[in-house]
Amino acid sequence: MTDNPSFVLKAIDNVVYEQRPIPEISGDQVLVEVKKTGICGSDVHYLVHGRIGDFVVNNPMVLGHESAGIVSKVGPNVKHLKVGDRVAVEPGATCRACDACKAGRYNLCPDIIFAATPPYDGTLGRFYRVPADLAYPLPEGVSLEDGAMMEPLAVGVHSVSNLGGFRANQSIAIFGCGPVGLLCMAVAKALGAARIIAVDIVPSRLDSLASRTEARKAIDLVIDASGAEVSIQTAFHIVKTGGTFVQVGMGNPNVTVNLGMLMVKELNYKGSFRYGAGDYPLAIALVAQGKINLKPLVTHRFPFDQAIIAFNATRAGKSEDGKGVIKAIISGPDVSVEEN
Amino acid sequence: MTDNPSFVLKAIDNVVYEQRPIPEISGDQVLVEVKKTGICGSDVHYLVHGRIGDFVVNNPMVLGHESAGIVSKVGPNVKHLKVGDRVAVEPGATCRACDACKAGRYNLCPDIIFAATPPYDGTLGRFYRVPADLAYPLPEGVSLEDGAMMEPLAVGVHSVSNLGGFRANQSIAIFGCGPVGLLCMAVAKALGAARIIAVDIVPSRLDSLASRTEARKAIDLVIDASGAEVSIQTAFHIVKTGGTFVQVGMGNPNVTVNLGMLMVKELNYKGSFRYGAGDYPLAIALVAQGKINLKPLVTHRFPFDQAIIAFNATRAGKSEDGKGVIKAIISGPDVSVEEN
Amino acid sequence: MTDNPSFVLKAIDNVVYEQRPIPEISGDQVLVEVKKTGICGSDVHYLVHGRIGDFVVNNPMVLGHESAGIVSKVGPNVKHLKVGDRVAVEPGATCRACDACKAGRYNLCPDIIFAATPPYDGTLGRFYRVPADLAYPLPEGVSLEDGAMMEPLAVGVHSVSNLGGFRANQSIAIFGCGPVGLLCMAVAKALGAARIIAVDIVPSRLDSLASRTEARKAIDLVIDASGAEVSIQTAFHIVKTGGTFVQVGMGNPNVTVNLGMLMVKELNYKGSFRYGAGDYPLAIALVAQGKINLKPLVTHRFPFDQAIIAFNATRAGKSEDGKGVIKAIISGPDVSVEEN
Amino acid sequence: MTDNPSFVLKAIDNVVYEQRPIPEISGDQVLVEVKKTGICGSDVHYLVHGRIGDFVVNNPMVLGHESAGIVSKVGPNVKHLKVGDRVAVEPGATCRACDACKAGRYNLCPDIIFAATPPYDGTLGRFYRVPADLAYPLPEGVSLEDGAMMEPLAVGVHSVSNLGGFRANQSIAIFGCGPVGLLCMAVAKALGAARIIAVDIVPSRLDSLASRTEARKAIDLVIDASGAEVSIQTAFHIVKTGGTFVQVGMGNPNVTVNLGMLMVKELNYKGSFRYGAGDYPLAIALVAQGKINLKPLVTHRFPFDQAIIAFNATRAGKSEDGKGVIKAIISGPDVSVEEN
Repeated sequence: MTDNPSFVLKAIDNVVYEQRPIPEISGDQVLVEVKKTGICGSDVHYLVHGRIGDFVVNNPMVLGHESAGIVSKVGPNVKHLKVGDRVAVEPGATCRACDACKAGRYNLCPDIIFAATPPYDGTLGRFYRVPADLAYPLPEGVSLEDGAMMEPLAVGVHSVSNLGGFRANQSIAIFGCGPVGLLCMAVAKALGAARIIAVDIVPSRLDSLASRTEARKAIDLVIDASGAEVSIQTAFHIVKTGGTFVQVGMGNPNVTVNLGMLMVKELNYKGSFRYGAGDYPLAIALVAQGKINLKPLVTHRFPFDQAIIAFNATRAGKSEDGKGVIKAIISGPDVSVEEN
Repeated sequence: MTDNPSFVLKAIDNVVYEQRPIPEISGDQVLVEVKKTGICGSDVHYLVHGRIGDFVVNNPMVLGHESAGIVSKVGPNVKHLKVGDRVAVEPGATCRACDACKAGRYNLCPDIIFAATPPYDGTLGRFYRVPADLAYPLPEGVSLEDGAMMEPLAVGVHSVSNLGGFRANQSIAIFGCGPVGLLCMAVAKALGAARIIAVDIVPSRLDSLASRTEARKAIDLVIDASGAEVSIQTAFHIVKTGGTFVQVGMGNPNVTVNLGMLMVKELNYKGSFRYGAGDYPLAIALVAQGKINLKPLVTHRFPFDQAIIAFNATRAGKSEDGKGVIKAIISGPDVSVEEN
Repeated sequence: MTDNPSFVLKAIDNVVYEQRPIPEISGDQVLVEVKKTGICGSDVHYLVHGRIGDFVVNNPMVLGHESAGIVSKVGPNVKHLKVGDRVAVEPGATCRACDACKAGRYNLCPDIIFAATPPYDGTLGRFYRVPADLAYPLPEGVSLEDGAMMEPLAVGVHSVSNLGGFRANQSIAIFGCGPVGLLCMAVAKALGAARIIAVDIVPSRLDSLASRTEARKAIDLVIDASGAEVSIQTAFHIVKTGGTFVQVGMGNPNVTVNLGMLMVKELNYKGSFRYGAGDYPLAIALVAQGKINLKPLVTHRFPFDQAIIAFNATRAGKSEDGKGVIKAIISGPDVSVEEN
Repeated sequence: MTDNPSFVLKAIDNVVYEQRPIPEISGDQVLVEVKKTGICGSDVHYLVHGRIGDFVVNNPMVLGHESAGIVSKVGPNVKHLKVGDRVAVEPGATCRACDACKAGRYNLCPDIIFAATPPYDGTLGRFYRVPADLAYPLPEGVSLEDGAMMEPLAVGVHSVSNLGGFRANQSIAIFGCGPVGLLCMAVAKALGAARIIAVDIVPSRLDSLASRTEARKAIDLVIDASGAEVSIQTAFHIVKTGGTFVQVGMGNPNVTVNLGMLMVKELNYKGSFRYGAGDYPLAIALVAQGKINLKPLVTHRFPFDQAIIAFNATRAGKSEDGKGVIKAIISGPDVSVEEN
């Protein structure tokens, strides 16, 4: 098997399949044969707008960054992986030498090479190269589809546990019940939340939750995964005095907030960006221990050659049959070893 | 001496001198004869508007909360103070039993009795009663005027050291060079700042600083003591990735901020409210050690019977002779033991 | 009901029942009719040795500090409790004004009035007076016996969660499976431990655990609840590099430890003392949520007039019928409203 | 210049000068021409005992790890350094991929390549190869001798600031006034200590301090840089309740400590190992800002060909003329560009 078919964004609303060279790997790297890739809102955003903020797609770029697969080659220095291992891929390779990397906040590395963030290619091809420490073995019982979902789950872990400092018996409110919001909820529940309040304007999203609760005051932690101004303003009201509010959803970048409340309640309003040390391991462990069930998240599945249909469904929020999309997953090009 | 003349706000723009009963003290309290009181922007705001946010002056209220004086009576359980001691007064008595008090964040106590925050009387009278642990002895060399300035200095300590976590060799930018901004600068300098950048639109305020520096990127900590939207938006730009931004100045309560920057830089945007455990002691120590000189802050001094002139000068930003006000201090009614 | 029979330690090995005055309560206090009291090793230690370290029983002292009961009188300022409420009693009233109290570490208050620590009387009488915020209402489904066990459970919460910073998916080893060690285990399990290793030299204690695991390396957190030198030395070996080791068990006060390991592994070796802000609430919540089952802990129950038999059984480690004691509970003197 | 004379430990008490190959450098590395190297107690320990704990010198090893020099070659990816730059060398290259490295505690990397810790060669040769981010440019006014002293100074920064969390106006006691103890003092002073207490049994060491103070209670932070049991036991007594005690000095590895005090005072007893993120930069900044003066530390200077005399003087604690050694520095083999 020598070819490397890839799903490439050429320009706005212009994607094609192209053969790309199979990456060479060096000492500490592994080559992963990608088996499952979830579509993220950012992938769709690049397809539709050609940019996210300052990140502009000036050259053709392979899409995709929520992936799991099978190790197909290992560099000579790699000890903890072997060919055939099933792995989740953390898609950001950092410089490991800057202040952020050395201080334990590598997600803030200015030189990060992040899949499908221009100018770097993503994972929607047959092969993806990654430093070995960013390929996490999947325990028995954790499927490759679960593995692909570790990326958005790590976002939830980072927001709720790492930045939010969420602990057993605390209360949490989450605005926005797209994939990230739902996964934040799953993390909060797995960590022993006393009360979880979910807020969305799409009733069907809330249907997937056990119960729909009216927001009240005194929430230890609030997560905004919506990016909507009204959510953010409501969050300032309901979070408890001295509480923490983590912003993980992006909408209109400019939002009006209430400084008086920020000050009088002495809030801690934190931006959340991707994930860092320990987030992937905790995500994988919570799934392996059965504390988080990722299966209801995946509503749509597509073969590699129907990737564009998967993108269109995610863009529309529903597939052609009218079924609402939470997460669409695209299989890798090689279907002979198909697995869920 | 049995009378207790007090400076009372009756209604908007309506202040009078009235006799008030001398407070009775119980076991753990002391009675302080107030000698020096600084005027804060909030005092003026109550005079002009009759309210600050939800705090409304519905009944006559003694103004003032930045005070120092001399202990004139001590409760039977008080051990560390005696009559005649010179003390700075921390003007917020808390319940000591709520979650916030017990967890070490007593400034967030919902039942705090704070001087000159309605419905509670302030310190601009002859006598003020305070729990003994909130009356801090002034070391030799620290004047009563310095003592009155410990209140705004504690605000600076809380913002820069406690919430901002500022440490030696870090850089700081401060927007707004009113008294709080200037005191934040003084704290940062005393704690060993590598670089301090001060920003204000009033050139004369910056004149009091050693140098005027243009804002550049990569500031470890940013303090906004202006409450101005343009300052807050600039702060998001210049603070370093992973940095902290403390909001201590209040202007228009609704401000538009950039969420994208909050997230991509993973900022920590913290509201600051008054001061808490350890802030007064550190403020007093830094002054006593000569690391902070409070004297340049006090531009105007008035006797007790000219309090209204002091308020008008603070309100106008300058006294009748045209001299700009940074901080005006009012002496207590008893001038026989006058001291600076 | 006006009498207040109490179980009083007069001298070493000399306990009697005496009538004591029913305490008067002031504004913020409540009077609790004590219904259940667990016996702690420290109670027995005072009985046998008349002292623990510098704490010497020079005057007659009521024993007991692990108690729950029913509110029988409330002070005029008390809002969250009413007569008849079932409550767990936190038995240490602090000064609320010292540096430790104000900084959120009230268990370190030098003036704490702690039940059954000389010279202060304990809870083994009909009535005990306590500040209202230290009487925690028991949710439905949480028995008075459970309520009495909140005291040692709060010790476990303090060690594992508060000082140990234990989080979901971490591993823990616990040396010593007396009541505190068992409760540390219960807390770790409730917080989502990935692996719990329990070590004791008494096989029957380990029988109460699901499995007996051999100690291996790389444990995130180690708790020593044994006070035994060999346990402590083993703990230094098995805790992971950069890990935390919390000492909650007291044996011989002088123990030889390995400094080389402390340094090369950069360990954090923390002493644990009682419990502080948030520990009782979390203890009660974990029981109320069904995450901790306290019932297997209580192996022996005695009426009030057989308190000395309860002490003797705890001292011997087994009752007269040979059954091993984990925790003995003594009921209050009034049996008419008996409940478990 | 193609030769690389090196000072090699062959066996216990057996050192020779040997030519070693000049290291090849790869993409992110630089080659440093070593100009100044301080002798550390560990260097002497290897010379005398051939081992430190589990680290055994089984093969010939170049000694030395406290070095500064001049960049003589840079790898193709290096941007912030150029040939001729004067740099301090941080002598531990880490894997950058393990949990410790990624979590911001790279000094705990199990695969660290540390100069003159077997089996890795040290810096006492003409050339030393180091990852570019571990070569720190020396600001103007900071000499190469100062640069060599950054290594022990970083140990002090790590213990006092990073692990000890020392802040302005706190008190500190330091046991042991060898180089590390003296540098801990310098750091504490630079960070604004309110009171510094130094303890040593060698009076001449204390002579270098401003004053000799008797130890009293209530010290916020205690550093033991002596490794002596009596110091450690005293430290437990004088540190304040709730305080921190950092162990940085190694003596007899087994020391008897008082658990009762650890628990009742709820101490935080931390081992300190080398230095980590931010420690070198803070060390260099404090020297560059004039807050720390390293010059009094260096009592003896030797040319490269008298390295053995330098070692003997350090071993004896005094040079042949009887002058006490605090720190001996050895110049590099090439004396043509000699500088202090």
